[in-house]
Amino acid sequence: MHKFYSIHHSLIWVFIGLISFFSLSQISAQQTDEEMLSDIYKTALQYPQPYEWLRSLTHDVGARLSGSPESLEAVQLMKSIMEESGDYDRVFLQDIMVPRWERGEKETMRLHTRNSGTININTLAIGNSEGTGTDGLKGKVIEVHSIDEVKNIPSEEIRGNIIFYNRPMDSLLINTFAAYGGAADQRVIGASEAAKYGAAAVIVRSMTTRTSDIIHTGTLFYRPDDPKIPAFSISTKDANKLSAMLDNGEIESVYLRNTSKMLDDTPSYNVIGEIKGSEFPDEVILVGGHLDSWDVGQGAHDDGAGCVHSMGVPHIFSKMNYKPKRTIRVVLFMNEENGSAGAKEYARVAGEEDLFHLAAFESDAGGFTPQGFGFDAHEDVKDDYLKKVRSWQDLFIPYDISLRFGGSGADVGPLKFQKGLLGGLRPDSNRYFDLHHSTEDTFDKVNPRELMLGAATMAAMVYLVDTHGIK
Amino acid sequence: MHKFYSIHHSLIWVFIGLISFFSLSQISAQQTDEEMLSDIYKTALQYPQPYEWLRSLTHDVGARLSGSPESLEAVQLMKSIMEESGDYDRVFLQDIMVPRWERGEKETMRLHTRNSGTININTLAIGNSEGTGTDGLKGKVIEVHSIDEVKNIPSEEIRGNIIFYNRPMDSLLINTFAAYGGAADQRVIGASEAAKYGAAAVIVRSMTTRTSDIIHTGTLFYRPDDPKIPAFSISTKDANKLSAMLDNGEIESVYLRNTSKMLDDTPSYNVIGEIKGSEFPDEVILVGGHLDSWDVGQGAHDDGAGCVHSMGVPHIFSKMNYKPKRTIRVVLFMNEENGSAGAKEYARVAGEEDLFHLAAFESDAGGFTPQGFGFDAHEDVKDDYLKKVRSWQDLFIPYDISLRFGGSGADVGPLKFQKGLLGGLRPDSNRYFDLHHSTEDTFDKVNPRELMLGAATMAAMVYLVDTHGIK
Repeated sequence: MHKFYSIHHSLIWVFIGLISFFSLSQISAQQTDEEMLSDIYKTALQYPQPYEWLRSLTHDVGARLSGSPESLEAVQLMKSIMEESGDYDRVFLQDIMVPRWERGEKETMRLHTRNSGTININTLAIGNSEGTGTDGLKGKVIEVHSIDEVKNIPSEEIRGNIIFYNRPMDSLLINTFAAYGGAADQRVIGASEAAKYGAAAVIVRSMTTRTSDIIHTGTLFYRPDDPKIPAFSISTKDANKLSAMLDNGEIESVYLRNTSKMLDDTPSYNVIGEIKGSEFPDEVILVGGHLDSWDVGQGAHDDGAGCVHSMGVPHIFSKMNYKPKRTIRVVLFMNEENGSAGAKEYARVAGEEDLFHLAAFESDAGGFTPQGFGFDAHEDVKDDYLKKVRSWQDLFIPYDISLRFGGSGADVGPLKFQKGLLGGLRPDSNRYFDLHHSTEDTFDKVNPRELMLGAATMAAMVYLVDTHGIK
Repeated sequence: MHKFYSIHHSLIWVFIGLISFFSLSQISAQQTDEEMLSDIYKTALQYPQPYEWLRSLTHDVGARLSGSPESLEAVQLMKSIMEESGDYDRVFLQDIMVPRWERGEKETMRLHTRNSGTININTLAIGNSEGTGTDGLKGKVIEVHSIDEVKNIPSEEIRGNIIFYNRPMDSLLINTFAAYGGAADQRVIGASEAAKYGAAAVIVRSMTTRTSDIIHTGTLFYRPDDPKIPAFSISTKDANKLSAMLDNGEIESVYLRNTSKMLDDTPSYNVIGEIKGSEFPDEVILVGGHLDSWDVGQGAHDDGAGCVHSMGVPHIFSKMNYKPKRTIRVVLFMNEENGSAGAKEYARVAGEEDLFHLAAFESDAGGFTPQGFGFDAHEDVKDDYLKKVRSWQDLFIPYDISLRFGGSGADVGPLKFQKGLLGGLRPDSNRYFDLHHSTEDTFDKVNPRELMLGAATMAAMVYLVDTHGIK
């Protein structure tokens, strides 16, 4: 794209320079919300330190599954970064116990075919999966497209065999998270459902909107009353291939092997940074993401981005010399991916200490360009909050941010009982499931401008709640 | 990110399946605008053929500067694709004459330093630049930050030397196109301005929001009354390095060499596909992008994306079996990058033939996730159109698209005299200037979902104008 421009742009440049100069000096009480938001966004773009923090988290630590040594390195790294930033009055760790799952040796999947010999397929055990035992297991494969379909298959067919869940995400939905929500049950409870009818293992089509060779892992939950059978994820390309070969009667059996196991719970931590409010120190505004990640990739978008989005809020305020009236807490939750121990314990302690969270905002949907914010609240207070939030919508027009009711986040959800405002950043979701829970979720996929606009959007929401309350 | 989901999602899946099934069958007169837009977006995501057309344009042809053999290959390729798609009543070429600029041999820039010997710097001649002659030229370098600054430097200092324009794009602006607009004058008229005071050549800092090694080219325009001196672009990293060395007094002189030249004008074409309107065939709704690109990279985002966005409109309509009431024209303009001959000729012929363009929508800002649409119109009709467009805003909320007055595009701009509605797609601009006019503008940077949402947004606008008019 090329446009013709007048030669007077140098004057505009100078004018913009002056605005920036004044806006970054001491905050004046006369600043309107419009001006404050403009300053917040400019400051975020001017000081992209959170992008460097994310580089450090993803490159110096990398993958950091709950309970792993790397997850504890990440705790120490982020605590140090918070302390050294000078953005907080206090940085501390909150003790929790987390599950510790290990993937074990590289997994094996082999198709034994009628006419093409043996075909190796790349696979990843699904998180929390049991192992097959060192000998592996072999069975016939039965393809289904829903959990419900399993119960209609005669038990004698299922027994000892392998259920293959192959319903794709509905890529025609605009919101890819909704598409994920419409398919993830296969991965989350598919193993227990198949086990109820005697299956020996399950294979699950990767949760992604793309047709690709990437394998996407994620968590499963075993229901206590059903046997715990191993679960494997394969790429969408391989899922299509397996499905086609099953249709042709080409597959005689499939061999699966993994040595994954769940170890004993182990100590870990939520990392918390706090700025005491100058007027209402007992009202907390929380911003957070989760520090743990899957054991593949670098956990860059999921959820390193959310961690540094959150740490960006005090950083932006500090650069603007904005002193919050209410207490700001940045919380990096541990164990969102496979248990949510950090979120549960944080909410439990908040209740025990009667520490009221006026608002709790989460970023756990990637570091892409922010498109909006979703809100949730207890039924008793929802209508009031909705009205207040709506009154802020026009402030966000210059930033293409739309505020909506619906959705907050898995880590702030447990605080709902306190009847504060819950919210979640809503970034562009189009590329998210290209990389989610896979080897592709790496730092180079994060764009610094996009990341910092996310931090700015979080900071803008915190500023508005801090200044105006929520009623 | 992980969320807990209920096991009832399989029912939702089936329900969505049914909606899609019905919506893709024959369009019923009872469909609301909401339903039509939903169908348009779903159809776009379901039939991503335009993404494959872009693959072909960028891989089979690649870079295609106006007047080059590749630009003529691109004309034939796109004409064939349009014809074979079956989406048009008629596909034809419009004759134009375009400038033909050639870069020549690989350019040379050498810094002769006081203490570090000779340092080679990667550089690209700016489009339309004259050559230095085969011997190259050597001079002292004078750094400036604006066009205006040049006139304050004593002429004897400038004479025979090199002006280095080093004002960065203002990366603190939310809209990177505004930042581009605030800096591009250095590249566009910097050479003529420096030549007026006797300079032998200019060096210009690349137009990008990143600090990187990428060199961004683009066009310059020589004013008829000033000497035509050569102009070079260097990366932002090298611009910072050169600036620091100038500050330290390290640079003795700089040697520059390029053999670029402007050849005689040569025949070329706009590619036009048309669907005759069933009720108002004399009212045209135009959608277009430009087919030419710079001679580096593949012209994927600039503006292959805009071409296939536009071709996506009839394709989506065809898949939906939607028959437009008004005439739809897809126009792939030639020579937007360095002359706009295609746009000027198209508008001239439209005037001559008295062919009224009720609306003309352009996509020339990349293939990233669409964020909105900008509109423009002749003063006489602007208020009416503004009212109409505003009435459509709520329809776009589910797609995070905001409609605004201001901005359309360089290729549809010349149609303003007809007093129709002009508009431009506004995609996410955060990554655009990472790759604009550079070797980085390649197909792999385009995400198919994001691209197809752009096509859907164009189609939605065309549908609304086709159905409701603009008054």
